Amino acid sequence: MRLLIINPNISSAVTELIRTEALRSAGADTELVVETAPHGVEYIETRFESLIAAGAVAEVIAEHAGSVDGVVVAAFGDPGMPALKELVDVPVIGITEAALCAAALQGHRFSIIAISNRITAWYRECVENFGLAGRLASIRSINEALGGIGSVQEDFGPTLVALAQQAVAEDGADVIILAGAPLAGLAREVAAQIPVPVVDGIGAGVRLAEAVVGLASGSHRAGAFAAPPIKPRKGLSPALERALDIAQQPAAPTEGGERV
Amino acid sequence: MRLLIINPNISSAVTELIRTEALRSAGADTELVVETAPHGVEYIETRFESLIAAGAVAEVIAEHAGSVDGVVVAAFGDPGMPALKELVDVPVIGITEAALCAAALQGHRFSIIAISNRITAWYRECVENFGLAGRLASIRSINEALGGIGSVQEDFGPTLVALAQQAVAEDGADVIILAGAPLAGLAREVAAQIPVPVVDGIGAGVRLAEAVVGLASGSHRAGAFAAPPIKPRKGLSPALERALDIAQQPAAPTEGGERV
Amino acid sequence: MRLLIINPNISSAVTELIRTEALRSAGADTELVVETAPHGVEYIETRFESLIAAGAVAEVIAEHAGSVDGVVVAAFGDPGMPALKELVDVPVIGITEAALCAAALQGHRFSIIAISNRITAWYRECVENFGLAGRLASIRSINEALGGIGSVQEDFGPTLVALAQQAVAEDGADVIILAGAPLAGLAREVAAQIPVPVVDGIGAGVRLAEAVVGLASGSHRAGAFAAPPIKPRKGLSPALERALDIAQQPAAPTEGGERV
Amino acid sequence: MRLLIINPNISSAVTELIRTEALRSAGADTELVVETAPHGVEYIETRFESLIAAGAVAEVIAEHAGSVDGVVVAAFGDPGMPALKELVDVPVIGITEAALCAAALQGHRFSIIAISNRITAWYRECVENFGLAGRLASIRSINEALGGIGSVQEDFGPTLVALAQQAVAEDGADVIILAGAPLAGLAREVAAQIPVPVVDGIGAGVRLAEAVVGLASGSHRAGAFAAPPIKPRKGLSPALERALDIAQQPAAPTEGGERV
Amino acid sequence: MRLLIINPNISSAVTELIRTEALRSAGADTELVVETAPHGVEYIETRFESLIAAGAVAEVIAEHAGSVDGVVVAAFGDPGMPALKELVDVPVIGITEAALCAAALQGHRFSIIAISNRITAWYRECVENFGLAGRLASIRSINEALGGIGSVQEDFGPTLVALAQQAVAEDGADVIILAGAPLAGLAREVAAQIPVPVVDGIGAGVRLAEAVVGLASGSHRAGAFAAPPIKPRKGLSPALERALDIAQQPAAPTEGGERV
Amino acid sequence: MRLLIINPNISSAVTELIRTEALRSAGADTELVVETAPHGVEYIETRFESLIAAGAVAEVIAEHAGSVDGVVVAAFGDPGMPALKELVDVPVIGITEAALCAAALQGHRFSIIAISNRITAWYRECVENFGLAGRLASIRSINEALGGIGSVQEDFGPTLVALAQQAVAEDGADVIILAGAPLAGLAREVAAQIPVPVVDGIGAGVRLAEAVVGLASGSHRAGAFAAPPIKPRKGLSPALERALDIAQQPAAPTEGGERV
Repeated sequence: MRLLIINPNISSAVTELIRTEALRSAGADTELVVETAPHGVEYIETRFESLIAAGAVAEVIAEHAGSVDGVVVAAFGDPGMPALKELVDVPVIGITEAALCAAALQGHRFSIIAISNRITAWYRECVENFGLAGRLASIRSINEALGGIGSVQEDFGPTLVALAQQAVAEDGADVIILAGAPLAGLAREVAAQIPVPVVDGIGAGVRLAEAVVGLASGSHRAGAFAAPPIKPRKGLSPALERALDIAQQPAAPTEGGERV
Repeated sequence: MRLLIINPNISSAVTELIRTEALRSAGADTELVVETAPHGVEYIETRFESLIAAGAVAEVIAEHAGSVDGVVVAAFGDPGMPALKELVDVPVIGITEAALCAAALQGHRFSIIAISNRITAWYRECVENFGLAGRLASIRSINEALGGIGSVQEDFGPTLVALAQQAVAEDGADVIILAGAPLAGLAREVAAQIPVPVVDGIGAGVRLAEAVVGLASGSHRAGAFAAPPIKPRKGLSPALERALDIAQQPAAPTEGGERV
Repeated sequence: MRLLIINPNISSAVTELIRTEALRSAGADTELVVETAPHGVEYIETRFESLIAAGAVAEVIAEHAGSVDGVVVAAFGDPGMPALKELVDVPVIGITEAALCAAALQGHRFSIIAISNRITAWYRECVENFGLAGRLASIRSINEALGGIGSVQEDFGPTLVALAQQAVAEDGADVIILAGAPLAGLAREVAAQIPVPVVDGIGAGVRLAEAVVGLASGSHRAGAFAAPPIKPRKGLSPALERALDIAQQPAAPTEGGERV
Repeated sequence: MRLLIINPNISSAVTELIRTEALRSAGADTELVVETAPHGVEYIETRFESLIAAGAVAEVIAEHAGSVDGVVVAAFGDPGMPALKELVDVPVIGITEAALCAAALQGHRFSIIAISNRITAWYRECVENFGLAGRLASIRSINEALGGIGSVQEDFGPTLVALAQQAVAEDGADVIILAGAPLAGLAREVAAQIPVPVVDGIGAGVRLAEAVVGLASGSHRAGAFAAPPIKPRKGLSPALERALDIAQQPAAPTEGGERV
Repeated sequence: MRLLIINPNISSAVTELIRTEALRSAGADTELVVETAPHGVEYIETRFESLIAAGAVAEVIAEHAGSVDGVVVAAFGDPGMPALKELVDVPVIGITEAALCAAALQGHRFSIIAISNRITAWYRECVENFGLAGRLASIRSINEALGGIGSVQEDFGPTLVALAQQAVAEDGADVIILAGAPLAGLAREVAAQIPVPVVDGIGAGVRLAEAVVGLASGSHRAGAFAAPPIKPRKGLSPALERALDIAQQPAAPTEGGERV
Repeated sequence: MRLLIINPNISSAVTELIRTEALRSAGADTELVVETAPHGVEYIETRFESLIAAGAVAEVIAEHAGSVDGVVVAAFGDPGMPALKELVDVPVIGITEAALCAAALQGHRFSIIAISNRITAWYRECVENFGLAGRLASIRSINEALGGIGSVQEDFGPTLVALAQQAVAEDGADVIILAGAPLAGLAREVAAQIPVPVVDGIGAGVRLAEAVVGLASGSHRAGAFAAPPIKPRKGLSPALERALDIAQQPAAPTEGGERV
């Protein structure tokens, strides 16, 4: 199985954090292609930065259309979701929705630990739009200016652990989600200090993408995620043009056997 | 008051429908600037087409930043909302959210009449994300291929009226929303045939934008819609670069007097 | 356009606050008729006081039926809504629902600042019943006895500003609603001190009523807001009797042209 | 125990139906005082008619304040609820909320059978406002003009049974609520024809009022249902004036022993 | 009327508390059969302990099938609900759902006072699953180790009162529910200290069961609570076998007259 | 990784369907232990049958406590969830919650195809309790008596496909869930006939359990899923006694490295 992992931020330091955790999480048979958004911002904190990133992610997906079995969008907040699921004929999964599912399967209520206060509004809307707001115990966040986006774990490790402990003790969290690609890998480091399961977004993204790709559930040949009718368009990138052309070809019906 | 009205679709025929209805709806003191998306698709029917459109709309807004008092995004489904509200320091309002408010103020439950079955899933999510799904009686749609996007009203007038009548009689709609810029102006034509208030998206967008701009409620200088911290970025269009530069300057505190 | 603005409280001091802000908010072509409830209490704080007020408001509306283009019910909590929308064939809009729409169009989550703790339960139910509880960040209130209902702004100005600032900083409010007719006009005074848009109930009521009346969406000739079947009644005020008689005549179908 | 049962409609024929069923339902130790609204309409079908009725009901309650142990508001749709619970220091219970509780305790989802299509919108809002909309399977109604409000059972018996059977078979209702005082007593007649529990509004109102009065839970001396601060008022009926005077006296703390 | 009251915990001290309050609450004509779970734990605090208890309760119900008119499951959290409603042809009511209804009929928002922090998660899910989470103001709990389950009232009386007072003052509770069979009878003792109605779970269970049994609404002969199709089974207790055999006989249609 | 797969029904024919699909779905490194409930019914269709099954499943889990890395409860409707997650220190996952997550990651709205009409009420509550009811497009079911539980696929193949096609065309399903262990493996057979992704419950259960176990998120040492305080108990099976003894030992803190 070949998974495309996309960092929607332009920070290559974060891409390396993602790559390291993704490699640790992936199964033996999973090949990873890790890409960084070609344009955008260093770290997405707002809905608008997410919108800009979504366009960049779409282009990366389009470039790889046909050569990967699944896609992981590796920024918490899931830029471009669920729209990007329409673009290609393989599962496209955000790390937030993956982490929400991983948390929901391990307890009833979960809390999200975020690296900036500003980002929490967008995260909350993301949980609401996915439909699991009823199980959100709280979102807690660092409330100080970050040094560098690549060193958040080192700079704020004890703060992040304390936030998680407070979420368990005061907010009733059964599971903790450490949110954001800059925290990739931290869950392993701090699990012993947090008395409930701790979900890493990147780990969840990779593992649940493997699971869903492995299910080979078939493609969208009708309904709201199928290719739209062919229609005039202009000004799109060549990769997007090509991806839409591919999407608008009738998808081959899924075979009865295993696909992946 | 100067309002920027943006057609997120690339169809200039639809832009003309929008312009005509916007001019009929606007107050005497309102100056309209009507623009068409520079790139995208002829008619947005899916979440992904909406995502593409949102990027194009952002660029148009960025180009006009500083020279308009408010913005109306004139495609039902509200491409880019609520992210685009972060971009500039004036109200940015989608015609869907405007129509939902106009409907909610005139009855309890409303139905949306759409021009394609494919588009209804996206519309439903838009209503859910705005938070008024509890008041949605139904979404009904034309279920045939469209001839041309500029002639939907002529081609399907009686069908659209019949759908609205069914929504009232069978779904309990207190108000009808005729959705989509291609239907701009139709509400006036068919109001006598539909026994409840009929809301036109473009009319609602213009009128409610005028109302909100007129309130001069002040700008977002803190919270989730304020400018994000300054951070490295790359590959954005010059207009977006400039808009983000402007956004990141501390907004002047609102004056106590009237602004508009 | 001729708008009837009704103070559901019997306090003429509050009526003057309403009148002043309504005049500042209204468009040049809008004529205002401002009335005070003929019976009821000095200031509505509870569901039961609201019920009493609703009956008084109904009588005022009935007296003006046929001579105004729209009605604004100018007490936060919207006494009599949505029932009063059934009474006449023009838009009847409460300042709460107007403020909720104005806030929802300018951000995602909003907080309401109220003048008494007692009143907040009723306000919360009002938001829930309108359907936007999912976007309510918080309701904060003055927690001291009021001096006079006409001098709340002077007596508690800094307290109200502090409550709004806390709602932004601690509750995640993107928009502040200053609730209650006794606060009419305060938003203009304090906007510079509150770092997010601040919505004035009276201003929102007038502006959104102008917008909705201007849309000329048509009347309710079927459905839950149309006139009920004619049936025996007794003991109603002459004005209500007349209003129900008018309501029970078949409404003229809306013309295709502009109505207002 | 002394219960006041109020018909919010002016129809004495319906009052007799209510009285008959209430007497059959009430316990041996329960004394019933049955009253008819002194003004209003023959049969409430709309939110506005309900608002008018609520005022009349308030006056009846006020007249009996101090001499009864509980009140049942005997029109489906619960005119004046929850406001009327503030008025006096004993339980005031609507037959809708009582029927919803009786149904919710006997199954998971319930359907409401109503006597006019027009009335269903108001009923739906009543269920939503009580908070149990998630358990509403459907509302089905007679869709023909009624002969007389006192003879609905005779005129439409088989239709009502058929609607209930459809609600079970097609909508998944576990329990049927026969809504509206004009159907008082019908549940007993048709129970054998409907294969799930059938709840009579009047019966539920009386039985659950007995249960709640019997609990002697104590009065509201603080919070949103306690008496509001004393304030100027004018134009209220003498009974309401007296009831508000009583309400504004500090309630005696509940004794530790049985009250009723 | 003969009611079976089951303590799902194995503690006979708690059974005595239940019996005492049930006897005080029950009507003169109600005969009570009080039973203790034959196996399980001393005090249910978790979902799993509740699951174990539900099986034990099912066996007790099965043993009494045919000889009682209704059943009260007397542990807060309602072990086995709503499944146990399927088992026999008479109302089976949990004290939580009864208390929620009793509270909802006496105010708008209620708080639950619990005897352990651990138990609150399960209680919250119970309220959510019943469908009234929208009216839950808060759950507050003792946060110390309990001495003995039979002496919680004596050991923590002032703490429990203080928690209730905080729920009223800080959380906006209109009604307090004292949760858990170990608190049976406490509501009467402390009502004078708590300024809103206080609901006792056992009292509510008995009174509302009497009310629902008295309604004689009829049995489930179709739908989700009727007997399932006959099918092979093995390893069940003789009492359960017998109860399922009885359940699978076609229920006699309810008579038109009174049943109880 | 060693997964325990439990058929909560007593039917060994269904256990074989489960085993076959589980083996096809499981990764190369996953060892499966497949067990059948020692007591209960042939096929669970109701809440009460589910309750009986949950007790049997608990005993099977308890017997294997300490020797498996995760548990899959292989009946749609998730008997015993979420209670069973408390019992042991490894992930316990129901096939319904797994299928809901697999569906939610592949589209927005999903429909469930069930093998009996009776079973749909329980399924609906299961979706509601998991928190994803907002994404449920519909539940459709076979409406005929089943021949044998082991031959549903052969007996009703075309019916099941037609139900799925209707859910896509009429209900707006983006993803189809074929519900129930008796349908294990069918998704592979019919994927070509259904134009959207089709999720198999057993496949989803195995794949998502592998993913969650692989995440090694850590155990519940605090919060609502941790072991309850030690307390007297009686009458439990030896396996449950032992499992509770194990659970009540302080869990070893999770290591920082990989666990599985």
